[in-house]
Amino acid sequence: MLSFHLDPRLEAETLPVGPLGLCMLRLMNDRRWPWLALVPQRAQITEFHDLTPLDQTMLTFEAALVGRVLKRETKAETINTAMITNVIPMFHLQMVARTAGDPLWPEPVFGRGGSLPYEEGEGERFAETLRQALLAS
Amino acid sequence: MLSFHLDPRLEAETLPVGPLGLCMLRLMNDRRWPWLALVPQRAQITEFHDLTPLDQTMLTFEAALVGRVLKRETKAETINTAMITNVIPMFHLQMVARTAGDPLWPEPVFGRGGSLPYEEGEGERFAETLRQALLAS
Repeated sequence: MLSFHLDPRLEAETLPVGPLGLCMLRLMNDRRWPWLALVPQRAQITEFHDLTPLDQTMLTFEAALVGRVLKRETKAETINTAMITNVIPMFHLQMVARTAGDPLWPEPVFGRGGSLPYEEGEGERFAETLRQALLAS
Repeated sequence: MLSFHLDPRLEAETLPVGPLGLCMLRLMNDRRWPWLALVPQRAQITEFHDLTPLDQTMLTFEAALVGRVLKRETKAETINTAMITNVIPMFHLQMVARTAGDPLWPEPVFGRGGSLPYEEGEGERFAETLRQALLAS
């Protein structure tokens, strides 16, 4: 059984939020939108259907939990979710909090580039807010 | 309990493939990519986390089944999945079969516009192929 190591590009583009049961939860370093990535801690998975049925169910549970907390904490109107492994060869589920009038609204934001990193400490503070909200949920 | 009616825009942009357990399976009328939509037959749902836990689990099961069959039938390299309800106010899960060199590869295709409808009968034949493959799986 191969051990899990976070893909270096995913690691470089995100900040840690914390561990869930199956997934590592990471914050995309892009302050245009509240944008999270759930990364199942499994080696060599690129497709959702290649996760075991138990892992699929765990991911579903964790995605619903994170989606509900992210929507509430950001007062967003809707959560956009995607699983895209065209470039980064590691399965991950992205969740973006969207609100009418935000950059690119109502277009999807996946793959549009132009990320704006958080200011010093700002991303870490937002990650901490989310971590506390998840612990309390 | 409100009864389910397929959103008119989703209906206009897709062809029927068939019923799954929870979802209606529809083929996007865009021959640039093999592109499916799974629509849970539930009224007034826009967010994944607003489905009941049982419906979330059913959707997970159906998405894994459809993803596996779609990838195999189209010989695609990867399946891109998204849940986006910014414009169409009905929850639906989209699955697109992607292959290196296809239009827009490796960019995501969600929200890019410019759909190219299938030729007469072509979409119906592809839907029938998928229906048979799902029945046999």
